[in-house]
Amino acid sequence: MFPYTIGSMEKGPNDRITDVNGVRVGQVTLNEGSIQTGVTVIMPGEGHPFLRKKVAASFVANGFGKTLGLVQMEELGTLETPIALTNTLNVGIVHDALVEYTIASCEGAGVKVTSVNPVVCECNDARLNEIALRAVRKEHVLEAIGQASEQVEEGSVGAGRGTICFGMKGGIGTASRIFRLDGRNFTLGVLVQTNFGARRDFTHLPGEDPAFECDQGSCIVICATDAPLSDRQLRRVVRRAGVGLIRCGSMIGHGSGEIFVGFSTANPVGAGEKHDIVKTEYLREDVLNTLFRAAAEATEEAVLRSMWFAEPVGEIGTLRGECM
Amino acid sequence: MFPYTIGSMEKGPNDRITDVNGVRVGQVTLNEGSIQTGVTVIMPGEGHPFLRKKVAASFVANGFGKTLGLVQMEELGTLETPIALTNTLNVGIVHDALVEYTIASCEGAGVKVTSVNPVVCECNDARLNEIALRAVRKEHVLEAIGQASEQVEEGSVGAGRGTICFGMKGGIGTASRIFRLDGRNFTLGVLVQTNFGARRDFTHLPGEDPAFECDQGSCIVICATDAPLSDRQLRRVVRRAGVGLIRCGSMIGHGSGEIFVGFSTANPVGAGEKHDIVKTEYLREDVLNTLFRAAAEATEEAVLRSMWFAEPVGEIGTLRGECM
Amino acid sequence: MFPYTIGSMEKGPNDRITDVNGVRVGQVTLNEGSIQTGVTVIMPGEGHPFLRKKVAASFVANGFGKTLGLVQMEELGTLETPIALTNTLNVGIVHDALVEYTIASCEGAGVKVTSVNPVVCECNDARLNEIALRAVRKEHVLEAIGQASEQVEEGSVGAGRGTICFGMKGGIGTASRIFRLDGRNFTLGVLVQTNFGARRDFTHLPGEDPAFECDQGSCIVICATDAPLSDRQLRRVVRRAGVGLIRCGSMIGHGSGEIFVGFSTANPVGAGEKHDIVKTEYLREDVLNTLFRAAAEATEEAVLRSMWFAEPVGEIGTLRGECM
Amino acid sequence: MFPYTIGSMEKGPNDRITDVNGVRVGQVTLNEGSIQTGVTVIMPGEGHPFLRKKVAASFVANGFGKTLGLVQMEELGTLETPIALTNTLNVGIVHDALVEYTIASCEGAGVKVTSVNPVVCECNDARLNEIALRAVRKEHVLEAIGQASEQVEEGSVGAGRGTICFGMKGGIGTASRIFRLDGRNFTLGVLVQTNFGARRDFTHLPGEDPAFECDQGSCIVICATDAPLSDRQLRRVVRRAGVGLIRCGSMIGHGSGEIFVGFSTANPVGAGEKHDIVKTEYLREDVLNTLFRAAAEATEEAVLRSMWFAEPVGEIGTLRGECM
Repeated sequence: MFPYTIGSMEKGPNDRITDVNGVRVGQVTLNEGSIQTGVTVIMPGEGHPFLRKKVAASFVANGFGKTLGLVQMEELGTLETPIALTNTLNVGIVHDALVEYTIASCEGAGVKVTSVNPVVCECNDARLNEIALRAVRKEHVLEAIGQASEQVEEGSVGAGRGTICFGMKGGIGTASRIFRLDGRNFTLGVLVQTNFGARRDFTHLPGEDPAFECDQGSCIVICATDAPLSDRQLRRVVRRAGVGLIRCGSMIGHGSGEIFVGFSTANPVGAGEKHDIVKTEYLREDVLNTLFRAAAEATEEAVLRSMWFAEPVGEIGTLRGECM
Repeated sequence: MFPYTIGSMEKGPNDRITDVNGVRVGQVTLNEGSIQTGVTVIMPGEGHPFLRKKVAASFVANGFGKTLGLVQMEELGTLETPIALTNTLNVGIVHDALVEYTIASCEGAGVKVTSVNPVVCECNDARLNEIALRAVRKEHVLEAIGQASEQVEEGSVGAGRGTICFGMKGGIGTASRIFRLDGRNFTLGVLVQTNFGARRDFTHLPGEDPAFECDQGSCIVICATDAPLSDRQLRRVVRRAGVGLIRCGSMIGHGSGEIFVGFSTANPVGAGEKHDIVKTEYLREDVLNTLFRAAAEATEEAVLRSMWFAEPVGEIGTLRGECM
Repeated sequence: MFPYTIGSMEKGPNDRITDVNGVRVGQVTLNEGSIQTGVTVIMPGEGHPFLRKKVAASFVANGFGKTLGLVQMEELGTLETPIALTNTLNVGIVHDALVEYTIASCEGAGVKVTSVNPVVCECNDARLNEIALRAVRKEHVLEAIGQASEQVEEGSVGAGRGTICFGMKGGIGTASRIFRLDGRNFTLGVLVQTNFGARRDFTHLPGEDPAFECDQGSCIVICATDAPLSDRQLRRVVRRAGVGLIRCGSMIGHGSGEIFVGFSTANPVGAGEKHDIVKTEYLREDVLNTLFRAAAEATEEAVLRSMWFAEPVGEIGTLRGECM
Repeated sequence: MFPYTIGSMEKGPNDRITDVNGVRVGQVTLNEGSIQTGVTVIMPGEGHPFLRKKVAASFVANGFGKTLGLVQMEELGTLETPIALTNTLNVGIVHDALVEYTIASCEGAGVKVTSVNPVVCECNDARLNEIALRAVRKEHVLEAIGQASEQVEEGSVGAGRGTICFGMKGGIGTASRIFRLDGRNFTLGVLVQTNFGARRDFTHLPGEDPAFECDQGSCIVICATDAPLSDRQLRRVVRRAGVGLIRCGSMIGHGSGEIFVGFSTANPVGAGEKHDIVKTEYLREDVLNTLFRAAAEATEEAVLRSMWFAEPVGEIGTLRGECM
């Protein structure tokens, strides 16, 4: 049991990103000697990602990172593949795997794909993983997609296998928040890959560790919601993931690629839309404050959970080995 | 009569920005000795601009300019005042006039305004106008708003009184294009304030003039449409105003503040919206190609019209004095 | 005496923005019945601002604000006027005052100015100030410039006269940090205008106040340094002002225009530069971490100082009225 | 011989991107039945790309494209790998090849690489190439790097093997311009991968072709110079590549990913820099007009050259088959 209460909003039923209807997560963990890495895949809601594109947006809080696929997402405001997280040097291979997945799975649906924009995010796990090997292969990505479910293992798993957070073992974490709009319940969930923070800056358990006195390494935050948002509104929401990181003690260090991606499962964009004019919905702008708070709280909690549920890897101990 | 045909699309009934339903233009021209300047105001559609905000976006093709109000427009995706054009050093005073207009006119509607984001664009008319005087006063702006109508005088009027384009007299120009979406007619109109271009680069009448061998001075393009667009889509459309400028011969020179602002009269954002979730519409993305072409064509034509209808001011002759 | 120690870095000799050589601050406070507002001016280093432009950059953390002058600053990477802070509805008049100051003072130096890009930032003080009056006049701005000095009064003064922070009286605050590069001392100083934060979110003194449960109102952070930075590097540094705000409890609320502007006094850009190729300096990129930390710490401290030194205005009490 | 003169500036000695000292180009063309694609690699100047990073910037004129590596380039202002061009679905594999190249070649220099940011650009050649096969393999990229030289074959080669421009065969084109700064000669060169334009919009040979009435497909422009520019200045320069495309007839169509990348070989950023403060140079801002013109002219010419030197592929004929 995760023992801490972060913020004031109500948690989702399972306190994870898959509380957002249709969102699923699959992970493959590689744990073989010097290979300590993996891949985490987020399936963005009901329907095939390419045939029912999701409204999406990103925010680059610090761009010292190798995330792929943001150019088109910013131009068109949509996400058309699963989002994959992995290690820094593996993004090319994982990108190719998402291309293959899209071609093959759309072929099954009778659609021939000649262009697709995979989104791949990463952290650098070189301290615990022999990163130059690029151990994550196409097969691992397809396996992670195949086994995606509402379960989300946390800690030293998937793309978080080799990551370090505030000098302790980080990894994958998730959390969610619920809120009401026009009398209906909506959910915002986040999943984080944590690999950032100077030991001395960790607000929940201040300490000192000369080996981790520099805030570097990266943090990826994926944010999902079923609330109807425009891509501009989504960008505003995902920016507040940074509030959660900073509450944990991040100063968004130079060497830390802090990159946030968000999508809404509401009002998907149909690949075969025939009308010129399409009906959609968005939120009255000041309502966003509720989602800002949800994004900040869920991100802070997800970071702590990524540490709480981690098991030691190599020389790096865990938060649970200490009192928080 | 403007004798040229630009592009292949159908023109609006009056070939001007006010072909977009509800859009009106008011201008005050100052022509007193060394004072050769003015103000041009675009009223962005039906209803009070502050109480029925318009979806809006901007694009800065070259930011050597002093346009005011873009920060909030980019964050919120809305326009909440008339758009005013004037000379470079007058933007502060004109900004204040729009604040006053908003407070006073909303008071009449029973709304107390304590915050408003005026949008003011400008070109530098210092070559023909004693710009340091900041001759445009609050009263001129209010007068321009008061007399706004569907008529749009072109050439050496309003904010275009003192501007120069490709070494000849520029000024205010306007044009529009019509297109069909889902079987209904829609309109895209532009209004330009032209003050850019090297004489030798003018594609419609190449020439040489050592005094105008540098592409500097600025061009403002205001783009209005009644088609339903998201703010992201509007930004994509107004970027294509640059296509029109470049077709005329612009190379978007260092010293030329090329700034484009667009808004849609469809789906205004009500100041008193009570629902959390708001219904709206947008265009299927590939339909934008039609609006891109409309923006490019109308901008090119409006630039030529600003020159064609201009009268000489000071030492600067007109296009009509030459053959085109 | 300000009793708190924020962060771990060494403070500048006077712990204020004017510790950066040549930077001066002038303020005019308006305190007459319902008029509770003012203007704060930052003179950006030695030499005339227009004739020795400073490398500069901005970052808009949340653009629900009316700051003027950022378009050109982002394009050219320079600041060419004093930076003025005031209330939301006064930015036009203050802009015009900076135009007048620039024309007049350059005329004295034999330079005729026909174009200038003033930078004016703002917070909304409508709760304590009758903002529609736009009480700050041109004369107040010129007076503030005229009296600019190394002294910086804090609290309910200048542009901070009517602002509210975390439900208590905010205002103007300042702080600085020192660091060594290549064996020499350098300084980073900040000045803030604080008008943000929900009462319940204030990390230094949690509380509840239903009247201030929404994070809105804006915060401006001006950041100065004598370290040599490119405009890109400066943008990276000023972004970390947000770390300081969030450490205080901001969640960068929807209605809060969080806007940061930074400049370096090193390597000014001469208005009369004759060479095509200009020599300059920048920092090795990873050295920026030191400046990031300085910006975060100084911003957090400056926010607290703006509250600590404030006197009550109207119904709004001060932090010092409570224990921190 | 290319028979046309574009613009007024002086061409470089060989009128190609490799006129910029140290820049080299390598290409591998795949021409086997339904496989009509390839890879083109630009080596960005003297020294190992990773150990002597180049000041760099990008501009996304239309982001419907899959270019990889721009996030970090925008944050840090540097390029640290060769730039590779290929087809849309091959970018992941080519990215991985650049990772492998960097690791292996740095190992030879005694440097262990655990993080690198490859830049990979693309056009969609699906009409002439069986793109789903992703026929470009790691070996092809390494071969292209290995054979890079000052020669640049143009037309239906490398990444341009399967591309179509204005309904005719496009491909790879290159051009350069020379200019003087402070009495010394400098060069700006461009290389383009052309896959854009509606047939009816081609300004150099207007025509009609119903199969190509939509401006889609993408155009990549790589811009190199030995003039000393900051990353901000480089971004301003590469934006003007768009002027060249529009002069040819582009309207920057919705489906066309128009993406420009530029770098300077002057003042490389040493991986082992030990000083905190680094000396560098930049251009007086108004001098950029010369580089803007060079970028526009060279881009327009390079587009035409990509068409002029192309050989027919599949059903797509060439410009030379018609009169221009």
